Amino acid sequence: MAVAPKHIPEPLIVSGFRLGVASCGVKSPAMRGRRNDVLLLLADVACHAAAVFTQNRCRAVCVDLAHATVQQSPDNIRLVVANAGNANAGTGKQEAVWAQGLVDAAAAVANVESEQVLSASTGVIGEPFPLERIQAHLNEAWDDLRADGWQDAAKAFSTTDTFYKSASRQVDGYTITGIAKGAGMIHPDMATMLAFIATDAPIEHHTLQAMLARCATRSFNSISVDGDTSTNDTLYLLASGIGLGHKPMLDKTKQASFEQALLEVCIQLAQYITRDGEGVSKFVTIKITGARTESEARSLGRTVAVSPLVKTAIAGNDPNWGRLMMAIGNADPNIAFDRYKLCISADDVIILSDGDLHPDYQEKDGLAVFSRQCFTIVIDLGVGTEIATVWTGDFTHEYIRINAEYRT
Amino acid sequence: MAVAPKHIPEPLIVSGFRLGVASCGVKSPAMRGRRNDVLLLLADVACHAAAVFTQNRCRAVCVDLAHATVQQSPDNIRLVVANAGNANAGTGKQEAVWAQGLVDAAAAVANVESEQVLSASTGVIGEPFPLERIQAHLNEAWDDLRADGWQDAAKAFSTTDTFYKSASRQVDGYTITGIAKGAGMIHPDMATMLAFIATDAPIEHHTLQAMLARCATRSFNSISVDGDTSTNDTLYLLASGIGLGHKPMLDKTKQASFEQALLEVCIQLAQYITRDGEGVSKFVTIKITGARTESEARSLGRTVAVSPLVKTAIAGNDPNWGRLMMAIGNADPNIAFDRYKLCISADDVIILSDGDLHPDYQEKDGLAVFSRQCFTIVIDLGVGTEIATVWTGDFTHEYIRINAEYRT
Repeated sequence: MAVAPKHIPEPLIVSGFRLGVASCGVKSPAMRGRRNDVLLLLADVACHAAAVFTQNRCRAVCVDLAHATVQQSPDNIRLVVANAGNANAGTGKQEAVWAQGLVDAAAAVANVESEQVLSASTGVIGEPFPLERIQAHLNEAWDDLRADGWQDAAKAFSTTDTFYKSASRQVDGYTITGIAKGAGMIHPDMATMLAFIATDAPIEHHTLQAMLARCATRSFNSISVDGDTSTNDTLYLLASGIGLGHKPMLDKTKQASFEQALLEVCIQLAQYITRDGEGVSKFVTIKITGARTESEARSLGRTVAVSPLVKTAIAGNDPNWGRLMMAIGNADPNIAFDRYKLCISADDVIILSDGDLHPDYQEKDGLAVFSRQCFTIVIDLGVGTEIATVWTGDFTHEYIRINAEYRT
Repeated sequence: MAVAPKHIPEPLIVSGFRLGVASCGVKSPAMRGRRNDVLLLLADVACHAAAVFTQNRCRAVCVDLAHATVQQSPDNIRLVVANAGNANAGTGKQEAVWAQGLVDAAAAVANVESEQVLSASTGVIGEPFPLERIQAHLNEAWDDLRADGWQDAAKAFSTTDTFYKSASRQVDGYTITGIAKGAGMIHPDMATMLAFIATDAPIEHHTLQAMLARCATRSFNSISVDGDTSTNDTLYLLASGIGLGHKPMLDKTKQASFEQALLEVCIQLAQYITRDGEGVSKFVTIKITGARTESEARSLGRTVAVSPLVKTAIAGNDPNWGRLMMAIGNADPNIAFDRYKLCISADDVIILSDGDLHPDYQEKDGLAVFSRQCFTIVIDLGVGTEIATVWTGDFTHEYIRINAEYRT
């Protein structure tokens, strides 16, 4: 079950990048040859890079390693290596050894330094990491490298994704292309979200990191399937433009239009992830307006978006505005709203106005909107002018089935 | 579906209190005569009283009113009136009028002052409150008053509860009896939890309030069905001992033993509510040890207890310790734990030790524990000596069904 988009455009080629995939049988030797599960994203020149990682405090050691690498050499990244089938998390004292081993193996096959390699792993946690099988077959990914490898790469790092996620934008002659994986935020075994984005724009890493952090907040950190975050969530952005000799660096105006395009790529990928959420049958946009700050708007929106009662009401086509009020009331106590000015609408139907049921509201109108596969809930907090948008799916029987039976 | 206790002992009579019920047809006139839906809890003498209310910031106006009353006359409470079938919440400008009307009607029938009356309402929200029907039949509850009315009162304010919840303790010659309602924290329409406790011990209200707040934290605020809290949750404690002329007031030692007994009553009622959670098929105790403070232990325990991924794993008999780690990692960033000292066990099976899979752990042993209807997960944070216990249920298909179809 998913709310798949009708059409995902072909990802655009980005100058200076090639991708290749291999079937290493990561999950089990029997899977070798049956699906690709390792990818390489190679930059022909040293890239400036930025990254955003999971805030989970039990995050995997491989995430610690990648974090250290991008901090130490943010202007000298050549390669991303990623695998599905095993998250290399919760594997105890071997975890760090395996994480470094994956990076070293990729560096060797690409003839670059280990300090130039970022890695990411997704899959089952707590299982020994099959480093040997990856080492044995990584050269196949090297042999497969090509500029139009984006789609195959997206498939290679997918897990229970029901469709492959890519998005591209062009701006001022530069290209941005990203791929993502993640069905919900949780699968398999709490389901790493991974997203890799590349551009040929010439932007240095401080600017890049600030942009990526802002874009992540408004995209990947504004979606919710179940409110849990994974040990391995990772977002990379590599920019090859400086190494390619593109000049001049983007000025402030061009930076702004670049960031807008980057945000669009991030939002597109994040929405795809929400639409592919486990057991999701609805895709709902929740827009918070009238807030004191954007961050308060987003936080309150997330509280509404993760509420199991709200999500089951959406699953049941039930315009249960009482649950929306309840969820709003459960928001962080520091977030300002005026309960007597609250307005709630769903698409074109005004439900609550100034904290009171709107005189024209009829249950059947609310029901009509909540019965749609995609709709928008707008909540005005009545205390300011700031806004934020979050995206969510519903909680269905299918979600329970997938997650209760996941390892059986 | 519920994990009902095998046997709930008869509630004990408490000197100075009588209870009566009536069938007012609150939800609809057709329900009149088919179930009791209003209760009176009358104290023969003015009581000292304490109360704990929902923290939800969209709480109902009737809760505001009760809060004001117990603050204004905490040494002079005579009556509690409660109804099922309508929460009188989200009903706009009429809400305050109806809330006061219910209090005034109860005061009139009992011939006490409105300032001596505490009320509580539970049921559907956003529907006009049928004050007239309650006014018309409230005298039936008055005529029904009797010292052994506890069980019928528990039934009268129940909603989708599948069993009636009462608990009693005796301590130093005094009696404590409480009743509660709530199936999960959420049903119907986000389902108010109500609990009313009475005692004939002589304790003045400042002490009473401090005791009740501590006990609520360790009981009602330590359970989780879905993490949402309602607009109407209310806990009352009335003590008739001073008015009855019992002397002397409890000394420090007797206060301590009284508080322990009160805590046992609260925990018993809270556990019953968890066991009767919507769609719950498992009752799980989560004990956090080795914390820096009790409050950190409880907060982290609640994060684990509300995680949809943990709760679906429990539903699926899946000893998925990776999800426990993930949930721990998502706890409030201010809560201290040492990821390399984390220990996790389930009943007698040690799963994780010093952050690493225990060498003797076998999946089949974990599976055996997680297949039990009731079991205990112990998580040691490795940074202190403080502990807290929380109780939770699983997330099942039935939960989704109940909440998706609630208003259909």
